[in-house]
Amino acid sequence: MKEIPSRFRMTLDIGATRSARSVGPVENRPRTPEDIVSEPSTSDFRAAMANLSAAVNVITTDGPLGRAGMTVSAACSVTDTPPTVLVCVNRSSRSHAVLVGNGRICVNVLGDDHADLAMHFAGATRVPTAERFATGSWDHDTHGVPVLRDAAAALVGTVRSARDQGTHTVLFVEVDHVSTRDGGGGLVYFQRSFHPVGTSRLSA
Amino acid sequence: MKEIPSRFRMTLDIGATRSARSVGPVENRPRTPEDIVSEPSTSDFRAAMANLSAAVNVITTDGPLGRAGMTVSAACSVTDTPPTVLVCVNRSSRSHAVLVGNGRICVNVLGDDHADLAMHFAGATRVPTAERFATGSWDHDTHGVPVLRDAAAALVGTVRSARDQGTHTVLFVEVDHVSTRDGGGGLVYFQRSFHPVGTSRLSA
Repeated sequence: MKEIPSRFRMTLDIGATRSARSVGPVENRPRTPEDIVSEPSTSDFRAAMANLSAAVNVITTDGPLGRAGMTVSAACSVTDTPPTVLVCVNRSSRSHAVLVGNGRICVNVLGDDHADLAMHFAGATRVPTAERFATGSWDHDTHGVPVLRDAAAALVGTVRSARDQGTHTVLFVEVDHVSTRDGGGGLVYFQRSFHPVGTSRLSA
Repeated sequence: MKEIPSRFRMTLDIGATRSARSVGPVENRPRTPEDIVSEPSTSDFRAAMANLSAAVNVITTDGPLGRAGMTVSAACSVTDTPPTVLVCVNRSSRSHAVLVGNGRICVNVLGDDHADLAMHFAGATRVPTAERFATGSWDHDTHGVPVLRDAAAALVGTVRSARDQGTHTVLFVEVDHVSTRDGGGGLVYFQRSFHPVGTSRLSA
């Protein structure tokens, strides 16, 4: 487990600590301590989200608006026809305009050996976004988009649409290049820390 | 690790095995074995997606179109203002119309003790969707939507918009009730198997 300093949590789109709240019954049944909170506060919602495991990714781009890379945990597969993933990017991030403006990005899915790289691209080392690529081993697609050589998976594609939703923009990326690492574990963000996955086993 | 029989993989929105493919160089650099595949086939894309860890969730609903529940791994947090999550649901699923039609759903984020429940709601036990709730301990919100009592987190809300994308529909759910389990690990889908998360630690 690697604890994330609170100042970097927002970059990972999950933050704050859980607040104490009074809770109400549901259908007047006796409840366990895991009570349901109605009209959740931001911190209630974030506390619940902290239990929604997510892969840790570095989203990269290069193009007319320059090079950028940032650590993001809100990404998922949408459909394989055509191959499409989505990524949620905070509009207050400096990289947001670069990612959307270039219109071509790579979702670099991190492995369990990439916790330091995740922190680096979350801004922990205070290196400006365009200069962060001195760390890590990067290739480039034909448009120059950085692709992490030893990523658990890398998905390069074109932003086909962008939908604003509250503080974030959901980018729908049609994937035209992929790489997949055989073997090795993944890196997951859970309960506000990085965890390895695939290295321990469930006794069925 | 709990292997998922291939016939249930589609329910989890990830499937197929990786195909052998010839690969091309990128900028003529020597590549590692993790080569980049251009114009990826469906199986190339799914192989990459298998390395994108995802929380395992049971999505539930009840309402005018009846009760339904299905296991889904493509879900993520979008924004906390207003609290919003998204879920990708295969349109070929029998539960799709019920989830969309009722318009009110719960994302039950599973814990590391819920692998059997995940298989059950993925259809492994061949129990019709409306009858699956005999397994597990369920409460209900004021609209009758089933909420898993010991979920790692449960997020109940209203579908504010639905966007078709290829084979799937992306449901944007505005959350009005949450519950969060304190302690316990999460359940992650990675490399086509269930894995616990939060029970082992990263050194560093």
